[in-house]
Amino acid sequence: MVRNAEADRVFQDLRAGHPRALSRAISWVESEAAPAPALLEQVYAQSPHPWVIGITGVGGAGKSSLVPHLARRLAGNGVRVAVLAVDPSSPITGGALLGDRIRDAAGEQHARVFFRSIATRGGQGGLATCVADLVRVAAAAGHEIVLVETVGAGQSELGILQVAHSLVLVNAPGLGDDVQAQKAGVMEVADVLVVNKADRPGADDALASLQQALLLSEREAHMREGLNELPGGDLHWHPPVLATVALTGQGVDELCARLREHREVLERQGRFAALNRLHDLRRMQSYFREVAQRRLQERMDALGLAQRLQAELDGEHGDPLAAARQLVDAVLPPAPAATPEQPKETRP
Amino acid sequence: MVRNAEADRVFQDLRAGHPRALSRAISWVESEAAPAPALLEQVYAQSPHPWVIGITGVGGAGKSSLVPHLARRLAGNGVRVAVLAVDPSSPITGGALLGDRIRDAAGEQHARVFFRSIATRGGQGGLATCVADLVRVAAAAGHEIVLVETVGAGQSELGILQVAHSLVLVNAPGLGDDVQAQKAGVMEVADVLVVNKADRPGADDALASLQQALLLSEREAHMREGLNELPGGDLHWHPPVLATVALTGQGVDELCARLREHREVLERQGRFAALNRLHDLRRMQSYFREVAQRRLQERMDALGLAQRLQAELDGEHGDPLAAARQLVDAVLPPAPAATPEQPKETRP
Repeated sequence: MVRNAEADRVFQDLRAGHPRALSRAISWVESEAAPAPALLEQVYAQSPHPWVIGITGVGGAGKSSLVPHLARRLAGNGVRVAVLAVDPSSPITGGALLGDRIRDAAGEQHARVFFRSIATRGGQGGLATCVADLVRVAAAAGHEIVLVETVGAGQSELGILQVAHSLVLVNAPGLGDDVQAQKAGVMEVADVLVVNKADRPGADDALASLQQALLLSEREAHMREGLNELPGGDLHWHPPVLATVALTGQGVDELCARLREHREVLERQGRFAALNRLHDLRRMQSYFREVAQRRLQERMDALGLAQRLQAELDGEHGDPLAAARQLVDAVLPPAPAATPEQPKETRP
Repeated sequence: MVRNAEADRVFQDLRAGHPRALSRAISWVESEAAPAPALLEQVYAQSPHPWVIGITGVGGAGKSSLVPHLARRLAGNGVRVAVLAVDPSSPITGGALLGDRIRDAAGEQHARVFFRSIATRGGQGGLATCVADLVRVAAAAGHEIVLVETVGAGQSELGILQVAHSLVLVNAPGLGDDVQAQKAGVMEVADVLVVNKADRPGADDALASLQQALLLSEREAHMREGLNELPGGDLHWHPPVLATVALTGQGVDELCARLREHREVLERQGRFAALNRLHDLRRMQSYFREVAQRRLQERMDALGLAQRLQAELDGEHGDPLAAARQLVDAVLPPAPAATPEQPKETRP
């Protein structure tokens, strides 16, 4: 385990429930600060998996009004909730997102709800990995439920949503057919469908068309790769379609209730634990790559190799792939005849 | 060097100028097919750097009409031109893009112009790396000029455009102010600015506002990281603003002329070669990671380690980061005291 005195201190404060320690830990992970790996190794070693609820839907569906309501209802009876709002398409400054958030001041002031906008592209490990880490950091600070809110319908959102046990897709009347079509990929993996702004004209149509789409959909879970091989792959959960009005809170109690039902079903099927193992396996693989990368870099630095090869590249006709192969051979010689009958690599 | 009989054959056909070999080579690289590394090692070892012209601009600017015109004018006198059209935001099937391309049949039939839509997310190495490889593959097939066309203004497009020596930004009248604002990052690195559809109302305004934006812009080349350290960092090139009408070909001759001027300036400043070295250096680094990754995987497979650790993760409270660290320690032990006075990693 990597140790770092500063990370130790923040981890202790995190476990003691200091909100500032949580903010700081999140910033470290977001920005890939130097103490982040040491902190994360402690977090993963000692913190439980929280219940992660993903909330997605195109802009205009009213997610940012709905999410604080939902977070407050889920909190209570000693349960603390963290909200992580991720917008992969936002500019690096995250300015627009933070602006949106002014509305949610009520949510932030709730003692059992922690709210944070995440402004990161996820660096080397990717955005999904970064969000998975942040979920565990929030759990280390005592949040049993983490809401991950994300905008849009691209591949990166689907990646982020892989960290979720329960997935809510938020829609609203009058957002147009193309929006619905874009959302097809997410709809197939959503566990609860919501038509927000249900007091507006067209709400009944939106509810009906979602219900119809659900019936037609064979609900192939191909977007959540690997899920088919988990126990309980034959889902007995039928995604409900709910109507909410975020501004008044109408329908939010029912949304909470159906989410809690979904979690119970997941537990009963053994899928909650199976998903956690799947996430752990993915994180093991990505952390392996991260640590290996750092260690290879150390070996190269020790040999001063990169500089020499860089100089070679400056020649009239540099060959970058040959130079890279030389580098790898120096720091990581090929395994001696692992498969002798069919050598994969030969050097002329 | 990795050798592969199939790759050898395709490389020979590629060098002989068989268009089918080029199509096949591109498909391999796009899809990360098994023979791709062997092919690429030959390509990089034996092929020159082509002149890469990046062409970008939002949808509606008429790039897909302009590009075939430009490609045909640049070709001739024994010079062959390849066009690679990349749309990072297109769905995996690439259906829409290919549909767009029906218009460009004239371009495809021109003997000295090769046209190909690229449908890839770039896999592990990333889209920019994939495009850089495809550019060299096209050069191996005898194309001295490669046009890389890309849509949009996101970070991934800027990455793709890093492979370009000369960058053309295509605009059109009436596309709205927000489009212009989005494009600010690209405008700062564009070498030639084009207002296409210049026969439409508002063309004069569009030309004037681009010229003004150019004057105001300090033309900080911060988006092209590292360029400041290259020789000739003090640019003597002032990006021209040109008017074209793609449908009639009006202005395309001038666009060609200015691009050729730009290339001459790049050569005179030593920047053409410097950019090639920068690209080679980046590719060396990414190929190092690819080969190292494969080799680490081989070591792990040989030890059967991944399976054992995966089984460990299945326990009640798996620790993925600790498991990953164990894995790395097994296949890549830490360097013995590279910096003994300040050990980076200690195991308790």
